[in-house]
Amino acid sequence: MTPEQLLDGLLRGNAAAQRRAMAKAITLLESTRTDHRALADDLLTAMLPHTGKSFRLGISGVPGVGKSTFIEALGLYLIAQGHRVAVLTIDPSSTVSGGSILGDKTRMEFLSVHDQAYIRPSPSSGTLGGVAEKTRESMLVCEAAGYDVVIVETVGVGQSETAVANMTDMFVLLQLPNAGDDLQAIKKGVMEIADLVVINKADIDATAATRAQLQITSALQLLGMHGGAGHAHRNTEVWHPKVVQLSALLNQGVDAFWAAVCEFKALQTQNGRFAERRQHQALSWMWERIDAGLKQNFRAQPRVQTLLPQLSQQVATGQLAASTAARQLLGAYETKSQSAGLI
Amino acid sequence: MTPEQLLDGLLRGNAAAQRRAMAKAITLLESTRTDHRALADDLLTAMLPHTGKSFRLGISGVPGVGKSTFIEALGLYLIAQGHRVAVLTIDPSSTVSGGSILGDKTRMEFLSVHDQAYIRPSPSSGTLGGVAEKTRESMLVCEAAGYDVVIVETVGVGQSETAVANMTDMFVLLQLPNAGDDLQAIKKGVMEIADLVVINKADIDATAATRAQLQITSALQLLGMHGGAGHAHRNTEVWHPKVVQLSALLNQGVDAFWAAVCEFKALQTQNGRFAERRQHQALSWMWERIDAGLKQNFRAQPRVQTLLPQLSQQVATGQLAASTAARQLLGAYETKSQSAGLI
Repeated sequence: MTPEQLLDGLLRGNAAAQRRAMAKAITLLESTRTDHRALADDLLTAMLPHTGKSFRLGISGVPGVGKSTFIEALGLYLIAQGHRVAVLTIDPSSTVSGGSILGDKTRMEFLSVHDQAYIRPSPSSGTLGGVAEKTRESMLVCEAAGYDVVIVETVGVGQSETAVANMTDMFVLLQLPNAGDDLQAIKKGVMEIADLVVINKADIDATAATRAQLQITSALQLLGMHGGAGHAHRNTEVWHPKVVQLSALLNQGVDAFWAAVCEFKALQTQNGRFAERRQHQALSWMWERIDAGLKQNFRAQPRVQTLLPQLSQQVATGQLAASTAARQLLGAYETKSQSAGLI
Repeated sequence: MTPEQLLDGLLRGNAAAQRRAMAKAITLLESTRTDHRALADDLLTAMLPHTGKSFRLGISGVPGVGKSTFIEALGLYLIAQGHRVAVLTIDPSSTVSGGSILGDKTRMEFLSVHDQAYIRPSPSSGTLGGVAEKTRESMLVCEAAGYDVVIVETVGVGQSETAVANMTDMFVLLQLPNAGDDLQAIKKGVMEIADLVVINKADIDATAATRAQLQITSALQLLGMHGGAGHAHRNTEVWHPKVVQLSALLNQGVDAFWAAVCEFKALQTQNGRFAERRQHQALSWMWERIDAGLKQNFRAQPRVQTLLPQLSQQVATGQLAASTAARQLLGAYETKSQSAGLI
């Protein structure tokens, strides 16, 4: 199919044709073949006017916090309200091993078979930057196909949480109702980027859940004291991260959660942050891909490949200053790039 | 002076000649002139066998925590023990404004005039990466001149603390004896990279200082639970970050502080981490400079400069996908690099 046909399938296909077009579009965007890349760029450009209209919700939390149960409960609730829900996943384990700890569709047994839901597991391997790019592009496909809530899920490990926060309108952190956990989240800088913290499994121990809610609320207040997410625009109201309790298993608190999301969205739209965040994300994304591309081209260049092992060795053993080695490698790279034109 | 003459002055000059050679060497290394850069690389390579023998100590803390008083007390203590002490500074405000909040030599009135001490303020402006590079190179000059303790100081703001931790053998965080402060340090990820935390001004309120010591100790234990600085090598003892109390003003606790530093150094040497950290730092430094150089060359290229404003605008307004823009810019950069060889 041509990019035009794919777009037509996304925009106007019946349910089955639309799913086929989504699968084909995402496969094309994920392809690493050079000839596919030009088609993929045509598709992206053609799709773009039909994207951006969803609410992009990032969700993270450590394994065992109950993300699948939560997303299933939320997804079914939203569909009952008339929304169409897409769930994408960034699985940091896939970027290392090509394996997956989150990719199993059967985790959400009701949502995964619902005709108003679209669930796509994590791209199967690559660098985190590469996986994040594929997920961003898949998000655009879902939007073009009319999904108006796109959930991007990740697990609370490493930098994947920052990657998800950087591609969504709102970032939600799921926590268990026990202390200690929150300090880990602060340590990794995740608490700092959370717009909303959910104490899940609140049914297990109501007292612990309420204590956790108070503790995290006061931690968020302290964290917001200097700069960061809390810096105020003049004359506009800004969002202060909240903590809510929820039991996804008992389906309690999902409505209150969604009400908090809607409140966030309304406020961010009104104070201009919603559009600002998306602009900022788009430009950061562009620079991230440029940086990755520059580094990849550098590493792939034959003269660099020849010099790199010996210079690295000399730097590691203290025979060559790191900055001198960097200048020599950059010099070799530039020379080669230019002389390539003479051949 | 030639690089050889400079090196000779550093290694064998009398006190006055050595100071002159240090000032000239650092000025040469800080120069941005292209012809100076080749001389600077020659100097670095010639100096390198004479470097690396100092203990590199990073010190940070928020304004008002008493860094100058502490460093002066420590410096004078070390000189009394027969050491020679260099103090370098990375002032994050200088990287923004070219101004300085830390550069004032008169802050350390006794140490600054001592003939066994060398104090150099922060490079006056540039990116943080550039300032960090200059400071690393100045550190090598101090080592070649026989300073066996090099202190690199910064203020507890932004990423300068990570930069200092990445160029030193041990990173020390100064804290005030009041709570709340520590959460800020955790938030910024500084507590996580600290090898030692000093509660300074413990004389003001002994009870508060002891409470802070207990709180921070327990926070460090929790932070060390998963990965990070605390992951153990098999069969070797690893360092667990400590908290000590001190009053720099009353000159109390400086000896206990230095004893903790020596304990750290002995353990890190024995378990292999000391050498490992330096190797890792040197290679990271090389890649940091390569990344910065690649980006600088990219941004300086005429075709990129022409295309960048319009493509950025299209990305920000949602007319062009960020990844498409990145590929177009990379394509323009590569084409131009190659055709430059034809001219």
